[in-house]
Amino acid sequence: MTELRSVTPPRSATIATIAEEVGVSVATVSKVLNGRADVSPETRARVEASLDRHRYRRRAKRRADAGGQLDLVFHGLGSEWAVEIIRGVEAVASHARVDVVLSQLGGSHRLPQRWLDRVLARRPAGLLLVLCHPTEPQRRQLRRQQIPFVVVDTDSATSASVPTVGSNNWNGGLLATRHLLELGHRRIAVITGPRDVLCARTRAAGFRSAHDEAGVPVDPALVRYGTFQVKDGYRLGMELLTAPHRPTAIFAGSDLQALGVLRAARQLGIDVPRELSVIGYDNLPVAAWTGPALTTVHQPLRDMATTATQMLLELARGADLPTCRVDLVAELVVRESTARPAPHR
Amino acid sequence: MTELRSVTPPRSATIATIAEEVGVSVATVSKVLNGRADVSPETRARVEASLDRHRYRRRAKRRADAGGQLDLVFHGLGSEWAVEIIRGVEAVASHARVDVVLSQLGGSHRLPQRWLDRVLARRPAGLLLVLCHPTEPQRRQLRRQQIPFVVVDTDSATSASVPTVGSNNWNGGLLATRHLLELGHRRIAVITGPRDVLCARTRAAGFRSAHDEAGVPVDPALVRYGTFQVKDGYRLGMELLTAPHRPTAIFAGSDLQALGVLRAARQLGIDVPRELSVIGYDNLPVAAWTGPALTTVHQPLRDMATTATQMLLELARGADLPTCRVDLVAELVVRESTARPAPHR
Repeated sequence: MTELRSVTPPRSATIATIAEEVGVSVATVSKVLNGRADVSPETRARVEASLDRHRYRRRAKRRADAGGQLDLVFHGLGSEWAVEIIRGVEAVASHARVDVVLSQLGGSHRLPQRWLDRVLARRPAGLLLVLCHPTEPQRRQLRRQQIPFVVVDTDSATSASVPTVGSNNWNGGLLATRHLLELGHRRIAVITGPRDVLCARTRAAGFRSAHDEAGVPVDPALVRYGTFQVKDGYRLGMELLTAPHRPTAIFAGSDLQALGVLRAARQLGIDVPRELSVIGYDNLPVAAWTGPALTTVHQPLRDMATTATQMLLELARGADLPTCRVDLVAELVVRESTARPAPHR
Repeated sequence: MTELRSVTPPRSATIATIAEEVGVSVATVSKVLNGRADVSPETRARVEASLDRHRYRRRAKRRADAGGQLDLVFHGLGSEWAVEIIRGVEAVASHARVDVVLSQLGGSHRLPQRWLDRVLARRPAGLLLVLCHPTEPQRRQLRRQQIPFVVVDTDSATSASVPTVGSNNWNGGLLATRHLLELGHRRIAVITGPRDVLCARTRAAGFRSAHDEAGVPVDPALVRYGTFQVKDGYRLGMELLTAPHRPTAIFAGSDLQALGVLRAARQLGIDVPRELSVIGYDNLPVAAWTGPALTTVHQPLRDMATTATQMLLELARGADLPTCRVDLVAELVVRESTARPAPHR
């Protein structure tokens, strides 16, 4: 837990010691500590190595002048659910009179070093990272400059020592699948996210667990992986629905995928929910508006953002977090797209 | 045009003259100029009045230290199309290495003075205001502090001297209605935004113009006003579709309203587009995913945001704008929700 805090550990070195060891001026060490750009990469690396060796950290007093801005960083703004996150962050931040600086990394899950240096030079109160992660050296850099960060991650892949807000994907997969099994479905397909995305695998694991629980075998042909976008829901939905022994229900990994499945069903003249049950994931506003309105797993994105922002502001105040990893609970929202399977088939 | 620029007009007063006239210190005048909070409202008002009288402005040189942040201010984040705007702003700003600070005013179209003072004290490069407007005294304050602003407004209500990016609503209404008339519809309803929102009235005017052009009279019972949200599309759609002589087509003021109309039609067992044509407005991503996919008027929100951000960065550099008011063109996107009216009715 102390990993996360802006406390001063025992220090064996001052800036002067570091400067002497590296053979640069005190001003240069100070520039590196302040994330200034006017230091050569080579010198910076040497200074950082020395700072790391001595486990040097800034004194905690600098929290007071941290300024009223936090950085909200998205891996990308491609997904509709970014608005939900922004709303949650904005609500907490504006109440605390903290400004929100918005960035997106063009789809990358890593923080570009040059970008990070520029951000840290502004001395933000903290970083709120959505689906992106600092590397280990970047985490050291953040600790050294006493700039806290919190990760919002629907995935549960983040290391335990990183403050993270997520949601329980396994449970979400379980709830959705149980609902379909309880309605009487026995041939249930799952379309989930990419195979290398942990939350996708976790939801699929919940899907399997519900089957195990009910003593119903999973047909491997009914487990499909794709991106979380509409077009993959459509494509994989088409594949599943045109196969000889088609499923009576499809559990999609996102509401967008579910919209793609609805579209495929419509084109094939398959009535939802009479001939096919469909469940989404996320509970985006659009889920309530589709025809038929989607049964879906509510992923509390806004609450996740709210919680993460509160954690970040606590850390920025130098406070302790009671817990470093928070998973909010997913809930099933039953609407119109699920029903008992048709009796004759 | 000079109204917009950060140039120094002939000045008859220095800070010292102002201070003497008001009977305060030079430091106090300077604080007011810098938007600092530690000045009493009464003193601030007197200093500002004197600055206004003397038409005092800061020297243009301060552009150089304007810093790398612009403020993106939404009247509210309630609407899905905020993401489209954010994407456009973010693309231009990140390319220019300018950070975006995001705010929302909780639905208000006015800038709270206390909030504005706090923002200006940070000396942002400029303000990008989405559906919100500074008052005349606030415009003077912005000019005096040489902080440019650009308004993004789907409405066309903004005064001509304010740099604004909008879209041509009248033309959008015309295009949508022409499409329906050309398909052969003669009983066309329009559901538009609130009566006091100019863009709603402007689209309705385009709707009427298309009827005039075609020599088809407008039935006043088929013109309805409501909020731009799903629930009003549903409510007004229900009213229109359960009336004795129901329309064969409905032109909705937003995609969200159109989703509400689709929902009403589905509940009433009215097939779209066979028995009812529906057109939306905005062309949000969701419009392509609904069942049936929506014919809609593409409002180029992302391009509007891109253009506005470019204008703002130009102004921040002290450059001239070739034109102060830009209206981007709306385009009709034909998908599945419109067709010829059913022959027998």
